[in-house]
Amino acid sequence: MSKILWIDPVGTDLFDQPIKEFLETAKGPETKLDVVSLARGPMHLEYHYYEALILTDTLHAVRKAELDGYDAAVIGCFYDPGLREARELSERLVVTAPAEAAMHIATTLGHTFSILVGRKKWIPKMHENVVKYGFTDQLASFKSLGMGVYEFQKDPAETARRMRAAAREAVEVDGAEVIILGCTIEFGFYKELQEELGVPVIDAVLAPLKFAEFLTGLKDQFNWTHSKIYGYQSPPREEIVEWKLEEQYGTSGLWG
Amino acid sequence: MSKILWIDPVGTDLFDQPIKEFLETAKGPETKLDVVSLARGPMHLEYHYYEALILTDTLHAVRKAELDGYDAAVIGCFYDPGLREARELSERLVVTAPAEAAMHIATTLGHTFSILVGRKKWIPKMHENVVKYGFTDQLASFKSLGMGVYEFQKDPAETARRMRAAAREAVEVDGAEVIILGCTIEFGFYKELQEELGVPVIDAVLAPLKFAEFLTGLKDQFNWTHSKIYGYQSPPREEIVEWKLEEQYGTSGLWG
Amino acid sequence: MSKILWIDPVGTDLFDQPIKEFLETAKGPETKLDVVSLARGPMHLEYHYYEALILTDTLHAVRKAELDGYDAAVIGCFYDPGLREARELSERLVVTAPAEAAMHIATTLGHTFSILVGRKKWIPKMHENVVKYGFTDQLASFKSLGMGVYEFQKDPAETARRMRAAAREAVEVDGAEVIILGCTIEFGFYKELQEELGVPVIDAVLAPLKFAEFLTGLKDQFNWTHSKIYGYQSPPREEIVEWKLEEQYGTSGLWG
Amino acid sequence: MSKILWIDPVGTDLFDQPIKEFLETAKGPETKLDVVSLARGPMHLEYHYYEALILTDTLHAVRKAELDGYDAAVIGCFYDPGLREARELSERLVVTAPAEAAMHIATTLGHTFSILVGRKKWIPKMHENVVKYGFTDQLASFKSLGMGVYEFQKDPAETARRMRAAAREAVEVDGAEVIILGCTIEFGFYKELQEELGVPVIDAVLAPLKFAEFLTGLKDQFNWTHSKIYGYQSPPREEIVEWKLEEQYGTSGLWG
Amino acid sequence: MSKILWIDPVGTDLFDQPIKEFLETAKGPETKLDVVSLARGPMHLEYHYYEALILTDTLHAVRKAELDGYDAAVIGCFYDPGLREARELSERLVVTAPAEAAMHIATTLGHTFSILVGRKKWIPKMHENVVKYGFTDQLASFKSLGMGVYEFQKDPAETARRMRAAAREAVEVDGAEVIILGCTIEFGFYKELQEELGVPVIDAVLAPLKFAEFLTGLKDQFNWTHSKIYGYQSPPREEIVEWKLEEQYGTSGLWG
Amino acid sequence: MSKILWIDPVGTDLFDQPIKEFLETAKGPETKLDVVSLARGPMHLEYHYYEALILTDTLHAVRKAELDGYDAAVIGCFYDPGLREARELSERLVVTAPAEAAMHIATTLGHTFSILVGRKKWIPKMHENVVKYGFTDQLASFKSLGMGVYEFQKDPAETARRMRAAAREAVEVDGAEVIILGCTIEFGFYKELQEELGVPVIDAVLAPLKFAEFLTGLKDQFNWTHSKIYGYQSPPREEIVEWKLEEQYGTSGLWG
Repeated sequence: MSKILWIDPVGTDLFDQPIKEFLETAKGPETKLDVVSLARGPMHLEYHYYEALILTDTLHAVRKAELDGYDAAVIGCFYDPGLREARELSERLVVTAPAEAAMHIATTLGHTFSILVGRKKWIPKMHENVVKYGFTDQLASFKSLGMGVYEFQKDPAETARRMRAAAREAVEVDGAEVIILGCTIEFGFYKELQEELGVPVIDAVLAPLKFAEFLTGLKDQFNWTHSKIYGYQSPPREEIVEWKLEEQYGTSGLWG
Repeated sequence: MSKILWIDPVGTDLFDQPIKEFLETAKGPETKLDVVSLARGPMHLEYHYYEALILTDTLHAVRKAELDGYDAAVIGCFYDPGLREARELSERLVVTAPAEAAMHIATTLGHTFSILVGRKKWIPKMHENVVKYGFTDQLASFKSLGMGVYEFQKDPAETARRMRAAAREAVEVDGAEVIILGCTIEFGFYKELQEELGVPVIDAVLAPLKFAEFLTGLKDQFNWTHSKIYGYQSPPREEIVEWKLEEQYGTSGLWG
Repeated sequence: MSKILWIDPVGTDLFDQPIKEFLETAKGPETKLDVVSLARGPMHLEYHYYEALILTDTLHAVRKAELDGYDAAVIGCFYDPGLREARELSERLVVTAPAEAAMHIATTLGHTFSILVGRKKWIPKMHENVVKYGFTDQLASFKSLGMGVYEFQKDPAETARRMRAAAREAVEVDGAEVIILGCTIEFGFYKELQEELGVPVIDAVLAPLKFAEFLTGLKDQFNWTHSKIYGYQSPPREEIVEWKLEEQYGTSGLWG
Repeated sequence: MSKILWIDPVGTDLFDQPIKEFLETAKGPETKLDVVSLARGPMHLEYHYYEALILTDTLHAVRKAELDGYDAAVIGCFYDPGLREARELSERLVVTAPAEAAMHIATTLGHTFSILVGRKKWIPKMHENVVKYGFTDQLASFKSLGMGVYEFQKDPAETARRMRAAAREAVEVDGAEVIILGCTIEFGFYKELQEELGVPVIDAVLAPLKFAEFLTGLKDQFNWTHSKIYGYQSPPREEIVEWKLEEQYGTSGLWG
Repeated sequence: MSKILWIDPVGTDLFDQPIKEFLETAKGPETKLDVVSLARGPMHLEYHYYEALILTDTLHAVRKAELDGYDAAVIGCFYDPGLREARELSERLVVTAPAEAAMHIATTLGHTFSILVGRKKWIPKMHENVVKYGFTDQLASFKSLGMGVYEFQKDPAETARRMRAAAREAVEVDGAEVIILGCTIEFGFYKELQEELGVPVIDAVLAPLKFAEFLTGLKDQFNWTHSKIYGYQSPPREEIVEWKLEEQYGTSGLWG
Repeated sequence: MSKILWIDPVGTDLFDQPIKEFLETAKGPETKLDVVSLARGPMHLEYHYYEALILTDTLHAVRKAELDGYDAAVIGCFYDPGLREARELSERLVVTAPAEAAMHIATTLGHTFSILVGRKKWIPKMHENVVKYGFTDQLASFKSLGMGVYEFQKDPAETARRMRAAAREAVEVDGAEVIILGCTIEFGFYKELQEELGVPVIDAVLAPLKFAEFLTGLKDQFNWTHSKIYGYQSPPREEIVEWKLEEQYGTSGLWG
């Protein structure tokens, strides 16, 4: 059995239940799944300041997940906020996130992919992630739906209509072989879109769930886990204690 | 349950049994596994001509696997021979191969990786695969062990010694955070090497097995499978029949 | 005098004569030219499976060409199938192919080029070849004519019309300075198109012919030929004989 | 007159005074300069978790600087933590950071540069910054001194000795034309090193100070400032207020 | 006080006065500014042959500037002609040019930029400069206004109209966050355009002026100046004298 | 018959005769060959200022070659000075140069190449040419012989010894499959070196000669010549005449 924690890194539990239900339909039989959101924070992460605000609470949720015996954590935002830091922090916990997972899957299924984002605002950072993960040559295009995070689920028919138009253009004009939905709150739309278009449409909630299960398996079986030698080398617990970082940041029991 | 076929694309069954035994130790509980090699062909694939010789038989083995109800096939050579063609050919079969699988895993576990090859001869094509898969920036180095495929298992102590030296240099001098064993016949060495080095060492047999299970799951659950719209669009069965390709190439029942 | 073999790597001799006639108009005075197609095989190579099917016969044609005293062989398909393997195989034979030749010429004549392909299906592999040959920054665009190989010569006026439209867009919108016709069966159209557009239009039959003559000259005069040290190092004849590969693959006299 | 705030984003004021004194020797005649560190936080930022811990306090210091009438803020760590977010946050404040400033200067002074880091641990993230800023082709190498942040100023003679050895190798072996000191706490060493080596050695404290003055001038004169249209578009003050983010994160008066 | 020489590298003084007046509005209080053009030469530099014609006179103007005690020289053409050679030539003079300056500024202000050129003719060389300076990933697009150098200032309303249309498309369609005016003679238009578009518009005259002041400051304070070790290593004065190059090229007193 | 002019772009005829003799051994039977050097100029081009000095005389030699009925001109320096401008200038003359020719040949013969330069000074500009021509991924390394242009032929045994050492390291350590001699005055050494190393060694005099013959053939037969639409569009003769450029630069009869 493997325990996975989905962290919805926002200050609302509004999506906890629907995401959990969605995840439950997809998790492996041996997976035990929890969804948490944060005790405080903005309602969405469209702005990088909001990402910054939730960063430490998210990392502490990751740390707590490790202490609580989880096998993996997913940081549930397509900007992949804190992925590097979470891996550095964790001793044995597997951590992944939507963009990484979705792109690794998409580049296996096709030569090129397009990402459907809500707003053009999101593109610069997401484009840097595409470059960072190595998939510049595989990126066909970003397509903006002109919608905020909270609009996706408000009028699903309109969302579906825009996705259809954007995805079709991505495939026909930009040559995309795979479509990635570039926001976790675009969940639930992949299936119909995929059937209509006839190309794989990667959902940003399902992708990291399955990637987390996959990576957890690799760790359990072969001890393949985040390399701790350079970039992901953990901070020394002694420093954290000596500097009273827990006290300073109002956490407790994380490195106690 | 998912059925996976490991194709050892050489004209000897010498490694069928040891690879099968090795795979059995690692496969998922729901996986049913077979290993085949080819009825004819060279004994190893160090030369690209040998790769060419086994290409159609390998693709026909893939096609047959699809007809026989397999869920996935692994083409068991680190050059990933025929991967593109096998995906084009398959209607629903998942196909993967060692280099693709190992690099997707390695780039998730660390920022940089090095590949331990047998001979420098192998590097140009493998380097092109690194570029093709998108991981140029993540490649720390290739390291040659100066050994042919058949030498790896002959004197395991010597092989381990060379791997240790090469991997240590890769980590310490070239900055690799992850090591990839760049040949399926380097199987069995990852574990000890990993423990010694303290960085993940990706085995080229285990990696594609688990990647195949992973991709099979994605297909079964979400119908995420190779995009058939452009590069992997299958040849029309009518043409194959009309041109009597089966007759010409001595196969039968593949498109019948 | 130099002897060049054009291999039309398909199972039909339908184009042998027209291509030969076309080549004859362009070959150097000292060139002796033959055109062969294969004894079996698909009628075109639009699908990668078809490329796989013709691979060994093509390589054996190359090997035979070397034994028969040819100086160079051209593998006549714009996917450049088997180019790497043919060079590895050959001891002294010069081998080239349309995409390589056309791109090396085009990048000498202009800063950017576009490739006119028949179908979008062809683009992913051809794009990988552009990257492999080093010309990513020089690629202005791919343009699809929406035609199969057999349609090019069926209604030449319609083909010319589509080429004109696509090439004009490539030049005016995408900024291409040179046009490459991305299929050998697009032969015969370059001249008129070039005159109309006022930019060089590279024919995929003429380009490799002249490139083969060029490379043959370099070999004859300076012994500049494919480097045999790493990637193109030939398989040892002893292995081929010992493993009875000729017998297995129904060839004879190639390494006898 | 322009007011610049140097933020030493750590939980100690140990370096405030020495850095201020060092900056004072270099600031423009019209520049008024303050140095602050944070009220809490780790003592150095070698680990990415530590970077995460200081992120919001740093951003709030930036925001406060804007409210307090500063013209520019420098985030004083060579990882450039929070640079993107700080620019997004600011309406008119100029924000810069050491790595960006140093690399823009270095690539103007030479064709290639090397970065002297304390530990190999730092390289993966810094390398990603090199890629992000566009200077992959200009990077000659990273050189590790094998020292932590607090060791640089402890035994200056030893530090200088190691810098000399590393920089000399960077210039002579790796072909670097410029050296960048990859940590703000390497301050004070550039001068002597530069004289010895005969190539520019960019100090990571001076570089962003002067870059901040430069950018401030551009803003004052031409209103050239961070583009607010996509990636740096600020979060709407209404959301911040409505969601009571100040209350939640224990700040007040920042968006009041 | 720092003395800067703006070299308008053409054989007309037509723009000397207007550019000087424009520069005077922008120069630093401590800057003393002169503008010169050449004694002979073409009237504009749209063609690379014209660039070649003015090259030595421009370099000699740079050398003379150094001898005359200038601190910096700007080569006033967006092709950045002779920048490499001028830096090689100069012992202590700072040299910069419009494209380099504008791109370094633009990439600090936004993630992506577009360049408005007069004619498509200019694009290939300017694109190579973008690549050379490292900003391939940041380039959103080139936009051609379809105007020659002398047309920009002839009908300013029409020029402004075309700039507006091109810049708007760059921002809205190509995702540019910053606009660069890709010709010095596009001076004077940035302000209004910037206000209308709401994104920074970098003027190709102001940018190198301020960059020259910036670099001069770095040199004066820290002796950070062009690295003289490899690419910018100056030719030995002895050779120049021994070979009588001054006599041969009709200069005198430059290396005397 | 085709007439080719080799321009040795220096102010000495010292190498005219030896280069001519060397070229005569290699030219095609139908090639008529002349070698010229310039009436003035530096004795070598190791410095970019020297390249600048010879630029216009070289271009005028190219223009004169066109007027005199030559079919092709080679600009005989491995920096490829003036190649862009010469192509822009020429209406029908083929122009090429050593680095371009050598790299196009080398990348056809192997996957990777190394360039043997005289001094490290040369590397930055040559490296930019490698990038410009598209061969970044194929470049194994630059190797410096630590010799000036005039030393190559002074003590041939010493030169050969250094070349051997550098080339061997390039092949064995850097993985080069082909060696390029990165200076025309390294002529005469390729043969012995090639035999010793067993990999192709491209001579920088022979390569552009043969490339010029090749391109001339393409032009004569298919009218494939430098695209005149954008980057190589020629300056209008009317402007040149109207501006009295000939008078100004002391030429006459070039555009008369």
